[in-house]
Amino acid sequence: MDIIFNKGGITAPEGFLASGVHCGIKKCKKDIAVVYSRVPAAAAGVFTTNKVKAAPLKVTMENLKNRKAQAIVVNSGNANACTGEDGLKDAKEMAELTAKQLKCGVEDVVVASTGVIGVKMPMDKVRDGIVKCCSTVSKEGGSDAACAIMTTDTFKKEVTVSMNIGGKKITIGAMAKGSGMIHPNMATMLCFISTDARIKEDALEKALRLATARSFNMISVDGDTSTNDMAVIFANGLAGNRLIEQETEDFDEFYRGLEIVCVELAKMMVKDGEGATKFMEVEVKNAPDDLSAVMAARSITRSNLVKTAIFGEDANWGRIICAVGYSGVDFDPNLVDIYISGKGGELMLAQNGMGIDFSEDKAKELLKEKDIKVIVDLKQGCGHATAWGCDLSYDYVKINGSYRT
Amino acid sequence: MDIIFNKGGITAPEGFLASGVHCGIKKCKKDIAVVYSRVPAAAAGVFTTNKVKAAPLKVTMENLKNRKAQAIVVNSGNANACTGEDGLKDAKEMAELTAKQLKCGVEDVVVASTGVIGVKMPMDKVRDGIVKCCSTVSKEGGSDAACAIMTTDTFKKEVTVSMNIGGKKITIGAMAKGSGMIHPNMATMLCFISTDARIKEDALEKALRLATARSFNMISVDGDTSTNDMAVIFANGLAGNRLIEQETEDFDEFYRGLEIVCVELAKMMVKDGEGATKFMEVEVKNAPDDLSAVMAARSITRSNLVKTAIFGEDANWGRIICAVGYSGVDFDPNLVDIYISGKGGELMLAQNGMGIDFSEDKAKELLKEKDIKVIVDLKQGCGHATAWGCDLSYDYVKINGSYRT
Repeated sequence: MDIIFNKGGITAPEGFLASGVHCGIKKCKKDIAVVYSRVPAAAAGVFTTNKVKAAPLKVTMENLKNRKAQAIVVNSGNANACTGEDGLKDAKEMAELTAKQLKCGVEDVVVASTGVIGVKMPMDKVRDGIVKCCSTVSKEGGSDAACAIMTTDTFKKEVTVSMNIGGKKITIGAMAKGSGMIHPNMATMLCFISTDARIKEDALEKALRLATARSFNMISVDGDTSTNDMAVIFANGLAGNRLIEQETEDFDEFYRGLEIVCVELAKMMVKDGEGATKFMEVEVKNAPDDLSAVMAARSITRSNLVKTAIFGEDANWGRIICAVGYSGVDFDPNLVDIYISGKGGELMLAQNGMGIDFSEDKAKELLKEKDIKVIVDLKQGCGHATAWGCDLSYDYVKINGSYRT
Repeated sequence: MDIIFNKGGITAPEGFLASGVHCGIKKCKKDIAVVYSRVPAAAAGVFTTNKVKAAPLKVTMENLKNRKAQAIVVNSGNANACTGEDGLKDAKEMAELTAKQLKCGVEDVVVASTGVIGVKMPMDKVRDGIVKCCSTVSKEGGSDAACAIMTTDTFKKEVTVSMNIGGKKITIGAMAKGSGMIHPNMATMLCFISTDARIKEDALEKALRLATARSFNMISVDGDTSTNDMAVIFANGLAGNRLIEQETEDFDEFYRGLEIVCVELAKMMVKDGEGATKFMEVEVKNAPDDLSAVMAARSITRSNLVKTAIFGEDANWGRIICAVGYSGVDFDPNLVDIYISGKGGELMLAQNGMGIDFSEDKAKELLKEKDIKVIVDLKQGCGHATAWGCDLSYDYVKINGSYRT
C-alpha cells in the first residue's frame, strides 16, 4: 500500500492541536510548546538509557504507565536535569498547570525539557508560557511548536505521512529536535509523534520500540547519550479505522509508516549534526546476525577516525575495518569487502580483508559528495543493519569547545 | 623499598643490546629496530583485542607460547596489517632473518610493525635493514631503537627504573611508541620492556597483564583500538636475584616498578596525543567496585563532549556526570560529587548530583592549566580507578582529516 509524504507535522492527524510561544527561558526565541489531542489517546514512550534522568522524564514515565495521555508540554533552554527535589516539583507543576488549562487529567500530561543541565527552572516564566500556550493551541500551531523545542538545531524537524489502512486514511505527524549533544550543557533528542490511527496500546508500544531501534538508536553524532532523550507517540483513533492489533497486516502497514517517519527524523538530526559537512550512511550486510550488523555499523559511524577521514575525503578503508574489528562482533577479517558509493556510482576499496588497487580519482570524486554511503559486506551470515552519522569537522570542536550561556 | 628513575631505556638492564636504523620504508627517518638479549629470556606479551590482527602479531603470539624469547625486530612505516598470506610470509621472514643474524632460535624472535594498513611490506628494504641492525646492536643503541619505532610521535618514549630486590639491583627499561591512532592508516601503540630480573614465566605474565590493565588500558586518545597494539616484556635474569615467584614480597616490589614504568609510558602517549593541548587525569573514587570505577573513568576520558569542554576550559560538570551516566555503571546520580583540581588547588563543581555555586574565576584559573585533574566521587562503595586522556582540539581534526601518504 502507498505511503504518501504530507504536510502539517504534529497537528496533521485528525484532532491534534498545538502551540509554541516565547516565555523568556531563552533570550528571544520560542521556548515552550504544548500539544493537545481533542480526545484521550493511547500513548507510548521510550526514554534515555542514561542513569542520569532529568526530572521531566521521571514524571512522564510515571504518567505513561496507564498507556493513556492527552497533552504534551515541552520547554527548551533548560533541561531541568540534576536539579534534585525542586526539579521534580517543577516538572510536576508543569503537568498540573497544563492539565488545569486544558481540562484533562494530570496523569495524562507528558512533560519534557531540553537545555542547560543543573540550573533551576525559571517557573514564573514557565507558568506564563504554559497558560499562553494552552490558550492558543490550534491546527496551525504545529510549526510554532516544532520551533519552540529547538535548541542548537539549525532547522525545524517535522515529518508527516499518510496511508490507507482498512479503507481509512491514517496520518502520522511528528516533530523532533536534536543535532547532537552539542552546545555546552545541552541535551540531545526529543521526538513527539501523533497519529489518528486506532491502535491497541501494546501494539503501539511495540511499533514505537521497533521503529526507535531502527532509527534514533542507529544515529551517532558524538556518541554521547543525553539525560533528557525521549520519544513519545499519541494515537487518538479519530481516523475511525478498525482497531490495529499486533501480528496483523494493518500493524505491518502502520509500522512501515511509523518507521519511515522515525528514520526521516533521525537522518535530519544527523544532517543537522554540529559542524557536520558530510552525511554518512553505513550499511553492514551478511553479518552473523542482525545484532552483529548493528554493532558493526554503529562502531563505524562512531569512530572519530572514520569521521575525520570522511571530513578529509580520504578513502581510508583501514579505519573502517579497524572499527568493525573493535566493535565486539565476531567475524573473519579475511572475508570482509568494503565499498563506498554515491551519486557517482559504487567503488570497491577492499576485498577479502585486503586493499585492492582502486582508482584514487574515482574515490576522490565519490568522497567529494555531501552524502556518502559506506557498505561493509562481512560475507558470513544474513544479518543486516544501516546506521547514519556525520563527519567530524573543525566546527564540531569550535561549537563544543567554547563556553556559551 | 625505593624505586629510582634511571637512564638508558631498553638497553639499561644487564645484557640487553639494541640498534635502530633507516632502511627506506620511510623517506628519511629511522624505520627499523632490533633488541637483543645476550641470553634467552623469560617473555610475556599482551596484544590488541581488535578482531583484525596484523600479521606480525600472529607470528609473535605463536612464538611467545613457550614463554621464552631472545630478540625483537620492529619496523615503522608499514603495519603489515590486512595483507593476507603474503603479509604472514613477510612477518615470518623477518623473524627468520633476525634469528639467523643473531644466532638465536626463530621461535625466540618477537616481530612487530606499525604504519600504513593494507600495503605490502617492502621486503628488499626490510631485509637490508634487519642485517644492518643486527650487525650494529650495542648498549648505546637503545635510543636509536626508540627513535626507529616512532610514527607520528613527536617525542621518543623511554623509561628506566632501578630497585633493590633481595639485595640485588634490578633494572627495568622500556621504549614505546604511540600518540593515538592518528595519522591516516597509522596504528597505535607498541611497548617493549626489558629487565635483568630473574622471575618465573607465570609471574612475569601476571605482572605484565596487571600493569597493562592499570596503564595502557586506562588511556584514551580517540577511543580507537588498533590492529597492531602489543606490549612485550623480556626478563633475562642476569641481575642474579633469587627467583621472583607469585604472591611474594619480591613479586609485589617488582610489580610496583613495572607499573610505574607502564604508567609513565602511558602518560607520555596521552601527552603526545594528536593535537592535544591539555592532559586530563580522571580519578573515580568510592564506586560500587573497581570495575565500575574503571568503566566510569574511561567513559569520561573518551567523551568527545568532555574532551572539547576541557579544550574550551569550560567547567562543564554536566557533561562529566552524563558520561558516567551512560558508562554502564550502576550508581545513584543523587550522591555524585565532582571536583576539578590543579596546581591552583581543588574546586568542587557539583555535590549530590547537583551543581553548586562555585567561583567561575577559580574554575577558569584551574582550567587554564595544561594538566587538569577531574575527581568524581560516587560515594557508594570503595571501587577506585584512574584514567588519563587529552582534550579534543582543532588540530586533532586537522591531523586526521587530511589525507597523507
